[in-house]
Amino acid sequence: MNPLHPFDEASKLVRRDDGVLVGRTSPLYWNFAGPFGGLTAAVLLRAVLDDPARRGTPVAMTVNFGGLVGEGEFELLPRLTRGGRTTQHWSVDLRQGDRILATASFVFARRVETWEHHPAGMPEVPPAESVEPLDTTKWMAWLSNYRFRFVSGAPVLARSIHDPLHAQRSVVWLNDIVPRPLDWLSLAAMSDAFFPRVLHARGIGAKMGTVTLTTYFHCDQEELDAQGSAPLLGVADGDRYSRNFQDQRIQLWGRDARLLAAGTQVLWYES
Amino acid sequence: MNPLHPFDEASKLVRRDDGVLVGRTSPLYWNFAGPFGGLTAAVLLRAVLDDPARRGTPVAMTVNFGGLVGEGEFELLPRLTRGGRTTQHWSVDLRQGDRILATASFVFARRVETWEHHPAGMPEVPPAESVEPLDTTKWMAWLSNYRFRFVSGAPVLARSIHDPLHAQRSVVWLNDIVPRPLDWLSLAAMSDAFFPRVLHARGIGAKMGTVTLTTYFHCDQEELDAQGSAPLLGVADGDRYSRNFQDQRIQLWGRDARLLAAGTQVLWYES
Repeated sequence: MNPLHPFDEASKLVRRDDGVLVGRTSPLYWNFAGPFGGLTAAVLLRAVLDDPARRGTPVAMTVNFGGLVGEGEFELLPRLTRGGRTTQHWSVDLRQGDRILATASFVFARRVETWEHHPAGMPEVPPAESVEPLDTTKWMAWLSNYRFRFVSGAPVLARSIHDPLHAQRSVVWLNDIVPRPLDWLSLAAMSDAFFPRVLHARGIGAKMGTVTLTTYFHCDQEELDAQGSAPLLGVADGDRYSRNFQDQRIQLWGRDARLLAAGTQVLWYES
Repeated sequence: MNPLHPFDEASKLVRRDDGVLVGRTSPLYWNFAGPFGGLTAAVLLRAVLDDPARRGTPVAMTVNFGGLVGEGEFELLPRLTRGGRTTQHWSVDLRQGDRILATASFVFARRVETWEHHPAGMPEVPPAESVEPLDTTKWMAWLSNYRFRFVSGAPVLARSIHDPLHAQRSVVWLNDIVPRPLDWLSLAAMSDAFFPRVLHARGIGAKMGTVTLTTYFHCDQEELDAQGSAPLLGVADGDRYSRNFQDQRIQLWGRDARLLAAGTQVLWYES
């Protein structure tokens, strides 16, 4: 039997007799002082995907990061708050002991064929193979799971106070280093696999972290499966940085210039 | 004593002895088959704003619309899921009987002065006074509370199947018809006061409704208060319409071309 892919190992959940799902943090996806937020999002999504009452595929996800998840076990209990004919609403809390460290809400739906329109356009970029990967070997552990090939707006961390601001917009080819066919979990995780815009713009590594993340899944199962392990094109930008908080808007583009997912998040920054 | 503004009347909450907050739907803010979603968002936000444990101002809000709220009373019980030194996370369910019809999460924070950056730019538009208001008198009740002055992308509902698609992007001056100084509640409501993009693009009134709404508040209390009852400039656009669902991204601009709020939502559409 083949060993699990590191992402599946890190996002594994075990159902206890009382119905609570138990996960465990992984050193492979560690960020500065807690797990990579995209992995936490994937684990919360997995709790719903694995639920016997779940119908359809994910349409929307919001994850609120309330506190740092510590090393070790954590508990999840998904709750179906509303199930309509075509749409389900789920809430999930992530707990360690009596502390709720993340809350999440999901919309699932059985999607059917309707009128289609795709006004958003993918940026014109060189193919992934022609772009030099970023060397992240000396950075936080989770970065070593992904290949980042920046077409533009790569992070530069050597800013002097006299330098002008960098562009906060990035365009980047993104894929798992150990190939893994795209699924809902990895798409959820990759929607958080961007460097904070505040770091791009200022070029300094001040304290910062995501407080809330919202991702919309535009693709259906067929389109997702068609992606395989080919790289996604990520685009990230930000509107405003003010009084400890900034936003970050992202898009993840797949084969045939289809927008597979898009989202937005708020990051806290210290000063 | 002056009568309450219709918006305050419609978003009023009464605290019962058991701590549950009770609201009542208002015919003045009725949509097709339930209350205007922006009013529901405002009511959910009010439940947290009025809570004695609340600290700071709203940073982010996500509201999931699970089912139609029926005419009459509804109940709210805000829950502080996590309170850090600077940031609070809140969850609120909206119930009628034993049905949860909406869930919401909020991030609040005590915001302090930090490095500031405002890369987003407001579109250049003619002043509000020079733009003709849309006549919404024959439309759903809630629309009569707002003045919509479309700079571009006004809804056109007379599409023939042979017409080309309309633009799905709108730029619109937006304000309360009965003047009311902007506050967090009205900013939350106005972040949902856009016509569905699918309606703009197709020009037909098929069944549709918001399933999830996320709004980020970029301004602090001072900037909010400075807006008074002057119109906001709204911008709305959409990326993709596929298999019953489409997204909608919005911005709300205030005085001095400051981005006060921005957000995104997913709408369901039938066919």
